[in-house]
Amino acid sequence: MSVLLVTGEAETSGAWMHTIAAALPEERVVQPGPGLDRAGVTVAIVAAPPAGSLQDLPNLAFIQSLRAGVDGLMADPTVPAHVPVARLVDPALTAMMVESVLLHVLSLHRQMPAYRAFQAAGAWQFLAQKPAAERQVGVLGLGVLGQAACTALAGLGFVVSGWSRSPRQVAGIRCLHGDGGLEAVLASSEILVNLLPLTPRTEGILDARAFSQLPRGAGLINMAHRWHLVEADLLAALETGQIDHAVLDVLVVEPAPADHPFWRHERITLTPHVAAATDPASAAAIAAQAVRDLRAGRPIRNLVHRAQAY
Amino acid sequence: MSVLLVTGEAETSGAWMHTIAAALPEERVVQPGPGLDRAGVTVAIVAAPPAGSLQDLPNLAFIQSLRAGVDGLMADPTVPAHVPVARLVDPALTAMMVESVLLHVLSLHRQMPAYRAFQAAGAWQFLAQKPAAERQVGVLGLGVLGQAACTALAGLGFVVSGWSRSPRQVAGIRCLHGDGGLEAVLASSEILVNLLPLTPRTEGILDARAFSQLPRGAGLINMAHRWHLVEADLLAALETGQIDHAVLDVLVVEPAPADHPFWRHERITLTPHVAAATDPASAAAIAAQAVRDLRAGRPIRNLVHRAQAY
Repeated sequence: MSVLLVTGEAETSGAWMHTIAAALPEERVVQPGPGLDRAGVTVAIVAAPPAGSLQDLPNLAFIQSLRAGVDGLMADPTVPAHVPVARLVDPALTAMMVESVLLHVLSLHRQMPAYRAFQAAGAWQFLAQKPAAERQVGVLGLGVLGQAACTALAGLGFVVSGWSRSPRQVAGIRCLHGDGGLEAVLASSEILVNLLPLTPRTEGILDARAFSQLPRGAGLINMAHRWHLVEADLLAALETGQIDHAVLDVLVVEPAPADHPFWRHERITLTPHVAAATDPASAAAIAAQAVRDLRAGRPIRNLVHRAQAY
Repeated sequence: MSVLLVTGEAETSGAWMHTIAAALPEERVVQPGPGLDRAGVTVAIVAAPPAGSLQDLPNLAFIQSLRAGVDGLMADPTVPAHVPVARLVDPALTAMMVESVLLHVLSLHRQMPAYRAFQAAGAWQFLAQKPAAERQVGVLGLGVLGQAACTALAGLGFVVSGWSRSPRQVAGIRCLHGDGGLEAVLASSEILVNLLPLTPRTEGILDARAFSQLPRGAGLINMAHRWHLVEADLLAALETGQIDHAVLDVLVVEPAPADHPFWRHERITLTPHVAAATDPASAAAIAAQAVRDLRAGRPIRNLVHRAQAY
């Protein structure tokens, strides 16, 4: 019986191997390679594994992701459908995402892009400022991250609406769902924050149609997945002023090439996929706990609903 | 018996007159001028009044400021020392200041100045990021604004230390005071937020000596008063890297002239005195309540301690 660690190209497999092995001293942690005993693998711990890397493991009983998003696993038809998959839900990552959401919502609410432009022009100029209690913020996605973001924003007095595909409830937050709910949330979102999981139903959700439903001059914050946003539609919406400013932490092509039009767009704030980073030690501890729960026959937390793909 | 409204040059006296008169329909609200019945004035409501404008009012019994800061009143020797003065404490203004503090602390904590520079250079580059629980933030000033800021920062998980000249206690916050306390708070402030009142003892407190006590590469956020900061010392500290970035909402000369060295300094973020604006309607309602408390013989809130000058 062994635990197979599979990491993607962008990951440093040696560091993960060290961290996971240290967190699970009672297990034999192995990596893919010619000498792998495939029948001995009962658990896989994965960080963006290459497609196909979890097939031909006849005794695989559990997959723990080291990432909050499992879209890659869900889209890989060679991942056995009967094997339970757990997402990473890490309070450290949630706290970091809440920081990012508050930072960028406050920045747009307090009109910092305009004040930075004034500073660059040497112009001492005030803008009318509404209080948070009159600022409507929409949050797409009401999972662990979306719920935490909604609660933190409401705590600062913002008027928060949350949306998810299926019904969810968050204390003190107006929560809507489904297509009709999406339209209502978009219509009231002066600042829109995307924290959705990527699924076939949310891919491309931030498109020209969605932008046209926002109040004119809205702010957009995409902290979720590169395939949620139709980048050409965003450029067009910035051009017309329908969207005033966008904060993007994820791009279709990462790293963005030097000639990408977003780099020097004065109404786009770009951060290099740092809104919420996985802390290896913390993630390894959570993965180790899941493996121990499995071995002891205890229920495993944060299992993915395969039908919903998140 | 009348209420005298005195506003400074930068204020729009007509708008204030309208708002105050509407909030106090039962009083006769008057303004300075040749026909003023000086003996009839028992209350003054003031917004940055010109020095000398509150003398020769023999029956003046109470002064209500429409500003949170009363340094101008305290520095004016013609303001009668026996007349109680109340500062403006407005929850709307406090909420706005908390927004500003969180925005700029999060911005420095999450290294946004560096990421903006990367974006301008077309560089997709990560920086190591520590969690809030390892980020030490110091707050100078533990009045209403400082206490609210400390509590909000601690709520996001920052390690917060607060300092005030005289002893104060804020639940859950390490509070220090006096000269020794200042040294300790400075030494542990990776990000320093100034919310002090301006008094003879706090004027120039943000100087080369204070900067030298900060950890190297600290961030500075001055949201309080222009005379707290020795601007030349800040430029020198930015030059050596002792301070990495400064956010300034107040400047010695406002509006800053076009050739001011701060405008285009890449490690200074300048906002034009908008961290927390007085909302006229809200301020007028608070002033009206104070006048009614006075007339009814009830205790008046937020009186200034004249000996401390705030």
